[in-house]
Amino acid sequence: MTAPEPMSAQLQTFLQQAATRVEGQIELALGQTTTGAETLFAAMRYGALGPGKRLRPALVYACAQTLRGADFEPERCDAAAAALECIHAYSLVHDDLPAMDDDDLRRGRPTCHIEFDEASAILAGDALQTQAFELLLASAGAPELKLRLLAELAEAAGSRGMVAGQAIDLDSVAKTLDLARLEAMHRLKTGALIRASARIGALLGGASETQLAAISRYAEAIGLAFQVQDDILDVIADTATLGKTQGADAARNKPTYVSLLGLDGAREKLQDLHRQAIDALAQLPGDSGLLQQLADYIVQRSH
Amino acid sequence: MTAPEPMSAQLQTFLQQAATRVEGQIELALGQTTTGAETLFAAMRYGALGPGKRLRPALVYACAQTLRGADFEPERCDAAAAALECIHAYSLVHDDLPAMDDDDLRRGRPTCHIEFDEASAILAGDALQTQAFELLLASAGAPELKLRLLAELAEAAGSRGMVAGQAIDLDSVAKTLDLARLEAMHRLKTGALIRASARIGALLGGASETQLAAISRYAEAIGLAFQVQDDILDVIADTATLGKTQGADAARNKPTYVSLLGLDGAREKLQDLHRQAIDALAQLPGDSGLLQQLADYIVQRSH
Repeated sequence: MTAPEPMSAQLQTFLQQAATRVEGQIELALGQTTTGAETLFAAMRYGALGPGKRLRPALVYACAQTLRGADFEPERCDAAAAALECIHAYSLVHDDLPAMDDDDLRRGRPTCHIEFDEASAILAGDALQTQAFELLLASAGAPELKLRLLAELAEAAGSRGMVAGQAIDLDSVAKTLDLARLEAMHRLKTGALIRASARIGALLGGASETQLAAISRYAEAIGLAFQVQDDILDVIADTATLGKTQGADAARNKPTYVSLLGLDGAREKLQDLHRQAIDALAQLPGDSGLLQQLADYIVQRSH
Repeated sequence: MTAPEPMSAQLQTFLQQAATRVEGQIELALGQTTTGAETLFAAMRYGALGPGKRLRPALVYACAQTLRGADFEPERCDAAAAALECIHAYSLVHDDLPAMDDDDLRRGRPTCHIEFDEASAILAGDALQTQAFELLLASAGAPELKLRLLAELAEAAGSRGMVAGQAIDLDSVAKTLDLARLEAMHRLKTGALIRASARIGALLGGASETQLAAISRYAEAIGLAFQVQDDILDVIADTATLGKTQGADAARNKPTYVSLLGLDGAREKLQDLHRQAIDALAQLPGDSGLLQQLADYIVQRSH
């Protein structure tokens, strides 16, 4: 994270505060190790607390704040934000494994199985998934709301969400995937958890069903936009800025938005998704400036 | 599963009914696949529905039935029983991976990563863990009770339970582990989930805190007894009866109850644990014959 970002000062402050809160929450949850399992905890911390955008936690806080307005209490979102980051972190640790994407480098650091070993990375990912549920279960709040948040998290993470997307992605290497299938894959692989982050934040913000639907449309659009920008950056950015190997997807012969639409087509798609996100925000009450800035950042980011 | 078991007809019927119920529940949960992720679902079914004792589901039903007596409704236990089997199945799929125990054979069948591939086995395990939480979340029941069951499940499965045990176990290969450490490892690796199965069944049976404590002591004793008998069988049984490679632990230079206590010492330990289990049952109301037969079976089984 060294290159300058096209980001407002307000958003920058917000993202920093969200990251600080969620990292503190994860530190706390992983603070007391189980005797004899020190390596496991070190690998969990390495996977969950390394450099990262903390986009999913930021969405939780931002959606809750947008709907709650002046009554927003960030501490009511901490457990959910940390849970979403733990699910995201576990998925990265497992995706990087040799049998999966076989990546040695993530965000400029050795991946978890390189820093530790494969067994530790598998177990750290497994335990980070459980940790996500533990975090939500240990949080304060009305039982019915907590169960709803847990259900949103589980549905987004499992075989009808993120893991299904990863399975489809692995299966797609060196295959011809048309645009509809590529999009269906991304909606599951990264979209489901981004959508769940926004919905969980909205539910914590007391969203009505109509507001929840608008938040979902917003999140689905920025989730896909994030992926389109990833594909664009994979082609145009250099490895140092990216913190991972440039051109990795192309080298793996994976279908991308750029390979299917060309660079200009992918950029058009990105602008279209950005518009969809902004349109969805129009249906929310109060000031949705923060969510708008987040959408702007996602399509303009350079890594 | 071919050798005859020293098992009462009542227990045999009970175990068969429990297995049928839980397999039906898992079939239902995994029945509708996500488009494009058919291999993932096939690997999940392979991992969760292969031959097995269904010991954890049986404990859920048996503890609930013991406490509920004539009012026992097995359908109220189905989701929890299936959840526990999914956690157990995921742990086996991941434990068998080349980077972990590197087993090609489980219960006489190729392990999941041999039948499919490593990536599918990693993802199937990941998704089976999530599925466990989804099953409990989708079940009927009072919100407070459901949250309690979820918390029991998560605590037993995660970095303070099963995964910690597996991490300690992996770390112990070719190391000198004394009896206390070996026992601490087993209490986490297999004991925590067996204990959670019994406690979740007891909670579904309306247990008081005193009854819950007695059930916990019972389950801790049979959980360790199961492991001691495993170590004994690893030395005395042949590969065909065992359904896995005989002498595998010894060949791996892993500490076992037999390597630390000798065969006679391990058998004494087994009887001692059996006594502890039976003693704990004395503190339960009504007829605990079924739980007693389950304890008998665990120390007498031949595979």
